[in-house]
Amino acid sequence: MADTRGTEMLLRAGFIRQLGSGLYAMLPPMTRVLHRLEALIRHELEVAAQEVSFPLLQPAALWRQSGRWDAYTRAEQIMFAVTDRAGRELALAPTHEEAAVAVARELVGSYRDLPLSIYQIGRKFRDELRPRAGLLRTREFVMKDAYSFHATSEDLARTFEVMGDAYARILTRLGADWRAAQADSGMIGGTGSREYLMLSDVGEDEVLYTADGLYAANAEQAVSHAHPAPASPFTTFERRQTPGTPTVASACAVLDCEPAHMIKNVLYEAEYLNGDQTSTRPILVSLRGDHSVNAVKLWNTVSARVEGTLTALEVADTEKWATSLPLGYIAPDLPDSADGPFLRLCDEAAAGLRNFTTGANETDWHMVGANWDQHFPLPEVADLRQAQAGEVSTHDPAQPLLSARGIEVGHIFQLGTRYTGALGMTYATADGSSQTPTMGCYGLGVTRLAAALAEQCADERGLVWPAVIAPHEVILTVVDMKDAAQVEAAETLYAELRAAGIDALLDDRPLRAGVKFADADLTGIPWRVTLGRGVAGGRAEVRERRGGEVQEINLAEMVQYVRDRLGQP
Amino acid sequence: MADTRGTEMLLRAGFIRQLGSGLYAMLPPMTRVLHRLEALIRHELEVAAQEVSFPLLQPAALWRQSGRWDAYTRAEQIMFAVTDRAGRELALAPTHEEAAVAVARELVGSYRDLPLSIYQIGRKFRDELRPRAGLLRTREFVMKDAYSFHATSEDLARTFEVMGDAYARILTRLGADWRAAQADSGMIGGTGSREYLMLSDVGEDEVLYTADGLYAANAEQAVSHAHPAPASPFTTFERRQTPGTPTVASACAVLDCEPAHMIKNVLYEAEYLNGDQTSTRPILVSLRGDHSVNAVKLWNTVSARVEGTLTALEVADTEKWATSLPLGYIAPDLPDSADGPFLRLCDEAAAGLRNFTTGANETDWHMVGANWDQHFPLPEVADLRQAQAGEVSTHDPAQPLLSARGIEVGHIFQLGTRYTGALGMTYATADGSSQTPTMGCYGLGVTRLAAALAEQCADERGLVWPAVIAPHEVILTVVDMKDAAQVEAAETLYAELRAAGIDALLDDRPLRAGVKFADADLTGIPWRVTLGRGVAGGRAEVRERRGGEVQEINLAEMVQYVRDRLGQP
Repeated sequence: MADTRGTEMLLRAGFIRQLGSGLYAMLPPMTRVLHRLEALIRHELEVAAQEVSFPLLQPAALWRQSGRWDAYTRAEQIMFAVTDRAGRELALAPTHEEAAVAVARELVGSYRDLPLSIYQIGRKFRDELRPRAGLLRTREFVMKDAYSFHATSEDLARTFEVMGDAYARILTRLGADWRAAQADSGMIGGTGSREYLMLSDVGEDEVLYTADGLYAANAEQAVSHAHPAPASPFTTFERRQTPGTPTVASACAVLDCEPAHMIKNVLYEAEYLNGDQTSTRPILVSLRGDHSVNAVKLWNTVSARVEGTLTALEVADTEKWATSLPLGYIAPDLPDSADGPFLRLCDEAAAGLRNFTTGANETDWHMVGANWDQHFPLPEVADLRQAQAGEVSTHDPAQPLLSARGIEVGHIFQLGTRYTGALGMTYATADGSSQTPTMGCYGLGVTRLAAALAEQCADERGLVWPAVIAPHEVILTVVDMKDAAQVEAAETLYAELRAAGIDALLDDRPLRAGVKFADADLTGIPWRVTLGRGVAGGRAEVRERRGGEVQEINLAEMVQYVRDRLGQP
Repeated sequence: MADTRGTEMLLRAGFIRQLGSGLYAMLPPMTRVLHRLEALIRHELEVAAQEVSFPLLQPAALWRQSGRWDAYTRAEQIMFAVTDRAGRELALAPTHEEAAVAVARELVGSYRDLPLSIYQIGRKFRDELRPRAGLLRTREFVMKDAYSFHATSEDLARTFEVMGDAYARILTRLGADWRAAQADSGMIGGTGSREYLMLSDVGEDEVLYTADGLYAANAEQAVSHAHPAPASPFTTFERRQTPGTPTVASACAVLDCEPAHMIKNVLYEAEYLNGDQTSTRPILVSLRGDHSVNAVKLWNTVSARVEGTLTALEVADTEKWATSLPLGYIAPDLPDSADGPFLRLCDEAAAGLRNFTTGANETDWHMVGANWDQHFPLPEVADLRQAQAGEVSTHDPAQPLLSARGIEVGHIFQLGTRYTGALGMTYATADGSSQTPTMGCYGLGVTRLAAALAEQCADERGLVWPAVIAPHEVILTVVDMKDAAQVEAAETLYAELRAAGIDALLDDRPLRAGVKFADADLTGIPWRVTLGRGVAGGRAEVRERRGGEVQEINLAEMVQYVRDRLGQP
């Protein structure tokens, strides 16, 4: 059942129980962890925004106004749609941009009401195709989502940084190993976005970053300088027979060149929805033979160039095209098909290539020594290439890109006027004219953050919570419940810790000490005080869960010792 | 838009905004009120249960196991059903008995794990036919719901009282005007339930209660002694011609008797679902001419006597039956129709009647001087009558029933084994045998409670929150922002109050004092400190929102004064 160590430990330790695919119940210790995490988030956001709460059910009309109903329900199928008893459609919200604008447009009349920043902590729903890894990818989860409205993009940029700073403080206080990375804005849209990722082998995202700390980006978005192509062995433009070489590797072998000398031309098919009508368009992407297409960059590029909502973008079905096209030998100037003209795109690195080889538009033939404009018209150029670890960063040629896996826990966006414009939100400026405010949105996964911490911190004995969100701060374990002195010392210490505002738990179950130690380790309470034979001499053992470090302390000094270790004043 | 004063004030004061039918956004002040209310509820429940959190989306299979899927989706249509991308049905939970058992059955192995009491605070959904009165009846709302599991019904009864005591403390701390009342268990089921109602003219429920405080019940459930029928004027059983008298009033006029001398026989039609098959059954209810049928009592009585899920119960369609039956002249022994035998029921008060008049099963004819068993077989007897204000209570004939309107804010149930049995939850007893635990559930409407308080407390100037959940405890209003002494005194006092842990708000907007006073009244902050010219002499005015009482206090004593009034140590 559990596909990651964190999930396994959360299940074994009784923090969560699965109720259905991607649906989990939070049991008492997890509820405590989440409450403490939410309190920490509220504390750090207090300076940045006011708390509100939006309904999870929302009229479909709102989502139609923003143009997202079709994209979310039909294209991505990521949004649950509900029909009420009167036959009206409702969205079960995966995000709240529409609701935030609908409320903000009633609260904001003039420039004096701006900026407005609001946030909520609550449930979200996504009809995930493949829920996985316990709380990391579920169909129902808790998020903190904030929305801000501004008169100017400079003011938006300031709030974007204020929110980013709050995220940095939150992740740092949690002791997380994290990176902020440039990111793709995806279906949310907007002009710029930044992800907050916690590094973990079970993460679904790849982060490319430099060691100097000046660059980090999701691989979906990352840019780099491609390794320069070595000088081309071809100097003359000519046609060569290359039998049985439909792949880059086989063609290079026959032509005695490297993949970096080749332009490959990949056929895609786009499907898009305009109103109720579905259309398709063939796409031809030219890129260097040693590079691969970044699906997200291509999606965004194509999405901006079709009329309507892009609903699918796939490498063309070879069976369908095999009879009509010279697949494996296509040139950038392949004539348009009967289905309509190609959208022709060329990757930036491919656009810089000289004396390249490419297909000859005829099976078993290639062209060599080709140059753009001279032999083939250069298609529209865009960054379509997947950046890779080992390539050189764009800000400093001495900094190669490094790679790590990450769990996206936060994502913040400068949206611009996409939603405020679509939903007709305006404000009166100082001179009385009407303007559309610019908008930002800021998401932080609460259940995912807790789960990512479980992944980062768990060891083979169980969970290891940071004290700031642990279900309890200290556990007092009585070694021998038949020893009245041990029991009495534990109860006294428990009362003292509680009185000092420390969240202590007393394990006075009549079980063997070993069982109790294992349970405490599994639960991940940061400090364990063991009350054993030492209490006769007024002493007890304190053990730190994370490092396993053990110290013997006088009972009389225990409260102060624990307080110091928890960093409390 | 606003159909009650509380709703009107919540909208005007910027606490809530409507986003769709029965769907509201909570704005910052309402979010503060709800957080404080939730904290108060958590505090009072801490002794009774542990907090958990269940998913709102739940596999339909769980609801089919309990037998409620059809009743909630098809019969009452009160539950939103969602279909995921794989075509599987999910419930959008209106309540969580199924989820609670599904989790509890994994947590409970033996009698040593019992009792188990858990609660959550979260969203619920109901596909209401007619949302109304702002937050009082919505399609999405916040509830506290608790579930408990026990080895014995005595232990369940104890927890039932512990939960009831917590509700009583919560409502009392909020200063609510409330009643605990015997209630119908409705679709939740179970052997006994109690409602907590806040009295309000906008309430949808009627409470019948006695002045001695010993009896209170929802009118749906209330019992009473009917006024005794006066001695019958009929002494001989005979047939009388009564042309054109299909109603009780017209028949009494012709027969020269009172409605209390008559047995009326009312035809109902029940529709019920067994598996996928819908069946109907005609029902004949005999009751005294001066009484009316209690729809809830009848539903429950019929529900227990049909095989399957009762989905509809309506007075028979007169057009359908007018040709085949002597409507208005029916006797208790009306022959069974071709559609199947009647379910025949007689109300308790009607069963005690002697020498009554009733229909003769022939249009324009009645029987008089009739007696049960002698002239008509007595049908199955049940309490089917609507109790009414003015009737005598069953516990003390000197206590007449009084009537009030109430808003149901809480409802607690002793469920028995309905859900634990259906979902196969068992525990091992001390002797190793397997037993089904008995269960209780305990609901408290959080958003509804806040809205009911708004209804009870609002006056013509706005909201009046009790200090314990007010969005702020004190508002400091600067009369003249151009007077530096006033501004300075306000800022100093604000800092002092904050330092003392009092949630103060400073109104330093450059507006006329009258506008600021009106806003403070509208928002309903319990205490207002007015910093005006008096600050020159070191004094300020304190005004209580509820009573309007005003006092002048030395600024130096203000913190202590406010603290005393808030009841803080």
